Amino acid sequence: MIMKILPALLVFLLVTLVSAIQASDDALTHQIHLPRPQTGSRGSHVPGISCLSWRLGVETHNIIDWETVPAACEGYVGHYMLGHQYRKDSKAVTYEAYLYAKSLNLTKDDKNLWIFDIDETSLSNLPYYVHHGFGVEAYDSTTFGAWVLEGTAPALPESLKLYKKLLTLGVKVAFITGRGESQRSVTETNLKKVGYHTWVKLVLKDSSYSGKTAVVYKSSERKKLEENGYRIIGNIGDQWSDLLGTNVGNRSFKMPDPMYYIS
Amino acid sequence: MIMKILPALLVFLLVTLVSAIQASDDALTHQIHLPRPQTGSRGSHVPGISCLSWRLGVETHNIIDWETVPAACEGYVGHYMLGHQYRKDSKAVTYEAYLYAKSLNLTKDDKNLWIFDIDETSLSNLPYYVHHGFGVEAYDSTTFGAWVLEGTAPALPESLKLYKKLLTLGVKVAFITGRGESQRSVTETNLKKVGYHTWVKLVLKDSSYSGKTAVVYKSSERKKLEENGYRIIGNIGDQWSDLLGTNVGNRSFKMPDPMYYIS
Repeated sequence: MIMKILPALLVFLLVTLVSAIQASDDALTHQIHLPRPQTGSRGSHVPGISCLSWRLGVETHNIIDWETVPAACEGYVGHYMLGHQYRKDSKAVTYEAYLYAKSLNLTKDDKNLWIFDIDETSLSNLPYYVHHGFGVEAYDSTTFGAWVLEGTAPALPESLKLYKKLLTLGVKVAFITGRGESQRSVTETNLKKVGYHTWVKLVLKDSSYSGKTAVVYKSSERKKLEENGYRIIGNIGDQWSDLLGTNVGNRSFKMPDPMYYIS
Repeated sequence: MIMKILPALLVFLLVTLVSAIQASDDALTHQIHLPRPQTGSRGSHVPGISCLSWRLGVETHNIIDWETVPAACEGYVGHYMLGHQYRKDSKAVTYEAYLYAKSLNLTKDDKNLWIFDIDETSLSNLPYYVHHGFGVEAYDSTTFGAWVLEGTAPALPESLKLYKKLLTLGVKVAFITGRGESQRSVTETNLKKVGYHTWVKLVLKDSSYSGKTAVVYKSSERKKLEENGYRIIGNIGDQWSDLLGTNVGNRSFKMPDPMYYIS
């Protein structure tokens, strides 16, 4: 009897085995873009801290003044940036920003202003960082400057959606960026090419701010905008230095960015 | 021939099958505590936003003024709180806080002060929230008050370590909590029982602050401490309302808490 059913049993077992392995693979594929600590067999974990915790620490401003992404987190950050989660996290922020803007009873006087940072907020430098270790390599002004001058940075899609919705609500937009005045032309062209067609002011970092932090520079420029009669109803940036300081506006939104830190 | 090796082959296949299933189970066990969006076959996702993104939004103060955890994220938040990631995230924060405190060149005059919030910062109410949907249920002052009066809240282990290390560095500690004056005795007993043995001040919310936000109440109490000569070198809390406002101290640390929001 057992010999008679053995072939059938064998086929059943093979099918079951293949299914089990298949299911295991599917789970892996599904999860490759989910944030996961770099621990275990690769042996390249950050001592005492998971890459998930590191990223949360960065996003919550608990971990500050860091120079590069921990080497062991390159794979983690790369998967995060290229996978679904970065986009989902960005969307959660811009969606919340839109809900907030929509909830306001705005005066119709063209003085309601929303501040956008540019790099990793309006435009994405991911095509550059893909080739530079997602922030594991130290910042290189030469190669990064050359990339900016190409003027081919894509829009961050969720930010562009927010930008368009804000304009529809009658909100004015100003960009304040850490890019220098020498990059004004290429930045304008790049912004317009990807869909940011209009703004009341594009503020680039003047040489007079040389050596000053982004917090000082951006606070000072926001103050000028308020002195010109604008009400900063919202501010969005990927760096806490876009959002802290003075004249911070009515509400701030922190875009995700685990690749670099600017003070 | 095939009939002769069949039993051996069968045993091999069974062992392989069991191993494959075992491996799959191990992976599941390992990952069950990692943050994962509640999407897919269970069909219970938050419309347009993953639970991961929701939690990041909460921790970064992009999502504010929320009343309860989205129902679809109960499982996600529960796994996060009971699993390894909450502990890891907490450790990343307190470790950073310790590095910061250690880096300071502190005056030895007993005036360097660190502010600790209590609930979900020094003490954990997880034994309560396990039975109340991890924040999915609306806050119930009666049942929560009864839980507090039991005085059995465990210490958050990483926070307790930080507390002890700060004392070793010569830093003084004050607690400022949203708990009311009527809960002073049980709170003192609970704190001491789990290892928080000393403090320069335990500030509970006086009825004069009734109707005031935590930001107003805590700012005002920090101001009093500064007026008494203390230098607030650090502040740690699970709510942004522990950390925002005035007299915020030299540096703030946000403990994770995806279970509730206090403004």
